[in-house]
Parts: sequence; C-alpha cells; structure tokens
Amino acid sequence: MNDDDLIRAIGIDLGGSAIKSGLVSSNGSINGFSRVTIDRMAGSEYLLENLQAEIDRLTALAEERGLQLIGVGVGSPGSIERSTGRIHKSPNFRGWDDFPLRDKLVKMTPLPVYLANDVNAAAMGELKFGAGGDFRNFIMITLGTGVGGALVIHGRLYDGAEGFAGEIGHMVIAPDGPECPCGNNGCLEQFVGAPALVRRARELLEKIDLTGPLAQIDPEEITVEEIGLAAADGDPVARAVLAEMGRWLGIALISLINVLDPDCILVGGGIAQAGPPLFDVIRRTVGNHAMSGAARVVPIITATLGPRAGTAGAGALALWPELTASG
Amino acid sequence: MNDDDLIRAIGIDLGGSAIKSGLVSSNGSINGFSRVTIDRMAGSEYLLENLQAEIDRLTALAEERGLQLIGVGVGSPGSIERSTGRIHKSPNFRGWDDFPLRDKLVKMTPLPVYLANDVNAAAMGELKFGAGGDFRNFIMITLGTGVGGALVIHGRLYDGAEGFAGEIGHMVIAPDGPECPCGNNGCLEQFVGAPALVRRARELLEKIDLTGPLAQIDPEEITVEEIGLAAADGDPVARAVLAEMGRWLGIALISLINVLDPDCILVGGGIAQAGPPLFDVIRRTVGNHAMSGAARVVPIITATLGPRAGTAGAGALALWPELTASG
Repeated sequence: MNDDDLIRAIGIDLGGSAIKSGLVSSNGSINGFSRVTIDRMAGSEYLLENLQAEIDRLTALAEERGLQLIGVGVGSPGSIERSTGRIHKSPNFRGWDDFPLRDKLVKMTPLPVYLANDVNAAAMGELKFGAGGDFRNFIMITLGTGVGGALVIHGRLYDGAEGFAGEIGHMVIAPDGPECPCGNNGCLEQFVGAPALVRRARELLEKIDLTGPLAQIDPEEITVEEIGLAAADGDPVARAVLAEMGRWLGIALISLINVLDPDCILVGGGIAQAGPPLFDVIRRTVGNHAMSGAARVVPIITATLGPRAGTAGAGALALWPELTASG
Repeated sequence: MNDDDLIRAIGIDLGGSAIKSGLVSSNGSINGFSRVTIDRMAGSEYLLENLQAEIDRLTALAEERGLQLIGVGVGSPGSIERSTGRIHKSPNFRGWDDFPLRDKLVKMTPLPVYLANDVNAAAMGELKFGAGGDFRNFIMITLGTGVGGALVIHGRLYDGAEGFAGEIGHMVIAPDGPECPCGNNGCLEQFVGAPALVRRARELLEKIDLTGPLAQIDPEEITVEEIGLAAADGDPVARAVLAEMGRWLGIALISLINVLDPDCILVGGGIAQAGPPLFDVIRRTVGNHAMSGAARVVPIITATLGPRAGTAGAGALALWPELTASG
C-alpha cells in the first residue's frame, strides 16, 4: 500500500430524506458509509448539527484507521453561488434559502471544504467513478421531484459564471405553457417533474377505466416511483404518462444536443429506473430530430452509480478540486 | 520590434458574398486585408481556386515583409466535423455539402491549417480581440439569414464532441411550430431567421396601412437589413417585427442562460445593428424570466468587431490552436 492509497475525502450527500456520508478514496470506494435519516423541514440549525456529527464521526474514523484526509466535499440541494458558497434557492428544505452554507461548514473542520449543488456532485461522481468516465463532454439529468441538470465540458464540471449552470428543468419548451414557480411559463419541469407526472396519472385514471396495477392504488397515494415501477410492469396508464414525459424530455434534449453536441447524456433519478418505457420514447424523439453529426446518435444512458453516487461524488469534489472550479 | 511582433497567421473568412483575408497579428491588427467578391453558387472548384489565390497572395506578402507565418485559419459556413474537417451541411453554398474542405486546404500550403465554422471563428475573434475578452464563458449569437451560435467555455472555444455545438438556431422553442428544413418543428430559426422576418414584415404591411419608410419599398425587395435600418428610424412595422423577434429570441436566451449561466451574451450579424428596438425587447423578456443569480442580470451586448471580425477570428484559430480544440 503506497501513500496515495491512504488518501481519503469526507463525502457528504445531503438529500431530501437522509444524509449519506463516508470516506471516499480516489478509486471510488467508500469506508464508513452511513445513512442518517433527517427531517428536511426541521430547519437549518438542525441540519448543521447533523452535518457536524457526520464530519466528526468520519474525522475520528480516518484517524483511527491511519487514513489521510484532504478535504470535505458536500453536495446540497439548491442553487449555490460559487463565489460566496451561499445557497441561493432551495425550495425543498426549510431554512435553506439564501443560507451561507459554506461559511457554516468552514467552521466545522480545519480541512478545506468543497461545496456543490447535489446534481453537480452526482455528475462528478459519474465522471470519476461511473458512466461518465469515458466521456469528456456530457450532460447529466436527474429526474426526481424536480428536474436537475449538470454539465461536464472539456473533461471537467462546468457550473457557469456564478455556479448556477445546469438548470435544465427551467428550459422553456412551451412558451404558452403552465406557469412555473420560477416566474416563467412552460418550463420543462412543469411537464416532467414528479408533481406533473402524478397529476397526469390521476387524470388518465379518471378518464380511462383500466385495471392495471396503478388503478389499484388510492389516487392520492400515487408517487412517481410507483408510476415507474408500474410502467416497467406494463401498466398502460403508467406507460402513457411516461410516453408523454419522454416526448417532452426528448424535445428539451434536442435543443441541448443541438447547442452542446455532447458525447452522451446520462439520466439519473428515481423515475429513470422505469427503463425502456421511458428511454425508448426519449430516444425515438431525439433520434428523429436532433441535428448532430450524420453518422452519430448521441447515446442516452442511465447513470450507473447507485444510492451512494452522491456521497462518492461529494468526495470527488474534494479529491479533484481542479476539475470543479469553472469560474 | 521583437520576434513575436513578426508572427502572423493567414486569416480567411469565407462568407456568402466575399472572401475576406489578411495577415493577422496577435494583437488583432490585419496586414494586407482584401475583400474578393465571390459567387456562392459557382461550386466548390471555383471556391477552392479563390482560396488558393488568397493563400498564395498572403504567403508572398509575408515573405516580402519578413513576417513569420505560423498557420492558416479558415472560417467557413456550414457544420464542420472536427475529426475529419469535412463540411457536413452548408445550405447556402453550392457544392459545399459533405465536402472534405480541410483535406483540400492542406494541399494548398505547407503551413498548418485550422478550419472552423464561421461563427466559431467569429467567437474566437471576439474572445481574443473584441467584446468577449473580459469573459471566460460566453454565448455568441449571429443573426443573419440563419441564426448562428458559438460557445466559449472555460476561456476557450467549445465546439462539442464532434464539432457541431452552437446550433442555437435549432433550439426548439415551439414544438408545434412551423416545420424547419432540419427535420424538426418550431426551431428558433423559423421565428427569427431572415426569411421569417421578411415574411412577417410583408404580412404586417398588407394588414396595416401605414406610411413608415418600410411601406415605401416594394414588398418583394424588403431585406432584413432594411428592416433593421427602418426600425432604427422608428418605422412602426419594422419595430413590430423586431419586437416579435426579440421576444422569441428572449425565450431561447432564457433557456440558454438557465442551462449555461454565461458571463455574457454577444449578439452579432446584420440585424443586430438595429440596436435598441431589438435589444430592449430581448433584455426585457430575459430580465423578467431567467433564473440566474438574484443580484445579476446577464449582459446582452453587441459584438464589437466590425466587418473584419471573421478574418481576425480565422487568424486567431491559427494563433491560439490550444483554445480551439475542445474534443
């Protein structure tokens, strides 16, 4: 074992339901992984206490095992201004809007702190340890409650002039479409975000009297994960919802491909698990219409890192800071 | 004068009506500038002969003046595949589709040859000599017959996986909109390209009985340049056309800003000369709706290099090849 094998970064993935953290090595292995359930509505003091506890736990563990810590990487929901490390907006966490997260983290540890938006952290994970490793230029999309995005360009993360790049969910795909909380009309997220999918599934279940697995669930209890699972099981309503979603997503991807000509597009997030019922429509929409090179169809593939992706990616922020600062 | 002051690149801007070429220095000055009118429908052999003549003329001139040539940079219309140097598509030039331009150029000179799409060359010019010099990440848009685009990211040109990035004119802004020759529906170019603007001006002139300068022109003779000039003179029809155009362009820019969070957006091309009647609407549309950092409005500014921009930019391709290969 040479010295490099002893180097670790603390990787912390702050998610909507849990903090997942561990000691991340340069080959992507994670020691001391832990998943701590949190209440995302309990406020910022509570969240900071939980983050401090994980940093302390992992710092002690590294010392115990003779590992050399080089930094702390944190992936957090929300738009994060790079120059200040402030969370600009984070609609799903109470007390996280306009919050000086980096300043708070810096006080928790003597180690250098690297903070990024959770989708950017996940993209770093895919770049160093996952499906993105073979590509210098790729777009990552995460399909969850919202639609997240991240860009890897020239072999490194690109987060824009101020750290806000990647808001793929707020591409305008129908200028006269429904209003979006961002202040605009017809954003992609209004068509393919979880609330839109659940609403659409309920509408179809009311209109069409069908007997698939989805029809067995109380309409109030339908979630996007259940739509994905039901579609994989052949449920016609779930498939119809995903087909519509796939077409809208395909339209946004055509614009992205024409502007960015990426090596590939990685799709992650819960609903991506639906597999072919979603991906077939996306690929068909894009394949018919994107302009990219005559001989080439841009691969649209599933992100490969599992539930530890965010942790590994957060660690990667600290292991390869030169690949993250795009300013 | 030190040795660096003697270094020049041959810069050649192949445009729809002329070849503009000269010897470009690292501060952007051009020696021996020449504008040779060409017939874009006369075919590839004719174009190659004209390119050869300019390369020969400038090579001789450099020798005569004791200047050291380090390469030939050429900006050409069309999508250009980086790996092969083939023009993939070039709708406005006869004989230029699927044409091995780089192979042909390499046979014309012993100097290294650098080939790029004309908008990418212009963006290199703005980056090194023009309005882009203060920015590491910017989007360039050219408004002409078509809508061209180029991206500078991380301080250098980004042309995508295969060289096709920047097709901003083929962002989908209205999925149920008019068909585009690219095979898609509702591309930006269908709303803001020259043919669309001229058509719209004629429609409005028929419907509305007005007496502005534009109404004095034979409708068949209206060009996009005249619309721009008339708008600057206060013509109500021209202003209405530009207001509609500005709104569509603004919608596309919102998507681009939300995805790329650029330092600025440079707008070039003939119609950009219309000034406030166009820019005010674009800025208003974008300012109301783009999500970028709370405190910041992305500057939307006119490209500053004049009619020699393409020549200077083509020279820049050869002077700074490390800033152009994004692959």
